Amino acid sequence: MKRACLLLIGDELLSGRTQDVNLAHISKRLNAIGVHLAEARIIADLPEDIIHSINAVRKKFDYVLTTGGIGPTHDDITVECVAKAFGRKIIEHPKALSELRAYYEARNIKLNAPRRKMALIPEGAELIPNIVSAAPGFRIENLFVLAGVPRIMQVMLEEVLPLLEGGEEMLSRTITAMVAEGEIAETLDRLQKEHEGVGFGCYPFYEEEPEGVASVGAAIVMRSYSEDKLNAAHEGIHKALKNMSAKIVDNRK
Amino acid sequence: MKRACLLLIGDELLSGRTQDVNLAHISKRLNAIGVHLAEARIIADLPEDIIHSINAVRKKFDYVLTTGGIGPTHDDITVECVAKAFGRKIIEHPKALSELRAYYEARNIKLNAPRRKMALIPEGAELIPNIVSAAPGFRIENLFVLAGVPRIMQVMLEEVLPLLEGGEEMLSRTITAMVAEGEIAETLDRLQKEHEGVGFGCYPFYEEEPEGVASVGAAIVMRSYSEDKLNAAHEGIHKALKNMSAKIVDNRK
Repeated sequence: MKRACLLLIGDELLSGRTQDVNLAHISKRLNAIGVHLAEARIIADLPEDIIHSINAVRKKFDYVLTTGGIGPTHDDITVECVAKAFGRKIIEHPKALSELRAYYEARNIKLNAPRRKMALIPEGAELIPNIVSAAPGFRIENLFVLAGVPRIMQVMLEEVLPLLEGGEEMLSRTITAMVAEGEIAETLDRLQKEHEGVGFGCYPFYEEEPEGVASVGAAIVMRSYSEDKLNAAHEGIHKALKNMSAKIVDNRK
Repeated sequence: MKRACLLLIGDELLSGRTQDVNLAHISKRLNAIGVHLAEARIIADLPEDIIHSINAVRKKFDYVLTTGGIGPTHDDITVECVAKAFGRKIIEHPKALSELRAYYEARNIKLNAPRRKMALIPEGAELIPNIVSAAPGFRIENLFVLAGVPRIMQVMLEEVLPLLEGGEEMLSRTITAMVAEGEIAETLDRLQKEHEGVGFGCYPFYEEEPEGVASVGAAIVMRSYSEDKLNAAHEGIHKALKNMSAKIVDNRK
């Protein structure tokens, strides 16, 4: 199973100004081709942090994806940081430039210096096309540099997926019941031991009721590479919840 | 300025099943007392990952906060991982136990083994009270171990804040305009150079219009410890946007 790490680059994510939505999308798309998102880091727009993080994780994981910092403004510093991390020069990529030129010409927009900056990439990197707004991402070795704007990141990611060596998809099933974690814990522990090849996770939640009383529930998530094992685990937890007379509120496949 | 790192622990965050909301809350509360959230890592429920991450970041940052994995179920493994990371034994904390006992007794709920597990903490750790559901967090040295459920995490965090050495709050102001990033980039670069002590960030967005045409905009965020410098920077960007005849759509203080 190939393991990927995601670097979400941007002060706005760390400050809480912007709620990240890229992680969930990337994780699900990677999982669909059998690549496991094993870690994510949210890092600031500081060259030393970016360079250090890239070099730390690219040796540790099979694939590293980054989002953010490849736009035209002064705070977009990912390209120069990646070049430094790999010890490479930055060049103006002819194909990137011609695509930017075509994109802006078609819209009667001037290709000024900041926009032209988006054709700069580390030497030897391969472009990742951007069918939304032309400015490309790029790949160096096992590092894939993507935009931060979700709709642009998403089209770039689809270009990246065929380049990755995938495997089996991790399947999952969730059953949600109005049962306290502490009530179901011993049963889950037993089921976890009985069902090899299945991982059980228990995620409690509170539901506020009109009278101000909170009732507790738990989503029980099972994960496995085997549909059969997942079915057996699901049957086991379903039966246990029935025996406890727990109200099952969601039981989608 | 003290720098903090946040470890969000949980497979459900990495898989995209659960959208994290704790980071933004923690970042804003830390900033309010002048502690800077400098990095966050989202890590899996794997002992080696948790232990390694804790030991890597606790030496690098002034403070480390963790969320998740301190509940009663088999997949709650943060306590044992923290104990291993610090080379400490796990003990049943008398005060934690008596609080759990009182909490469950008052609700006519049996303090079974899984619930009692929540009184286990690494030796020498100080409890962080949980006024919602009794099961405490704890502190060892510069590490603060909090719950993952947002409403519990939030009350624990308020207990933690007075224990941290704060500083000046980072102030910020945002002006949002319907202007392309590439159009404003040179102006922003000039303003960034002119306004020392202020950091300018530019965050583009797309607004889908009914006709299917997307119009582009950018939120320009200024950050500074100085209200005066922030005012001057804000005046500068406001004037520049006016000169460009850019439509300003949001200009809250």
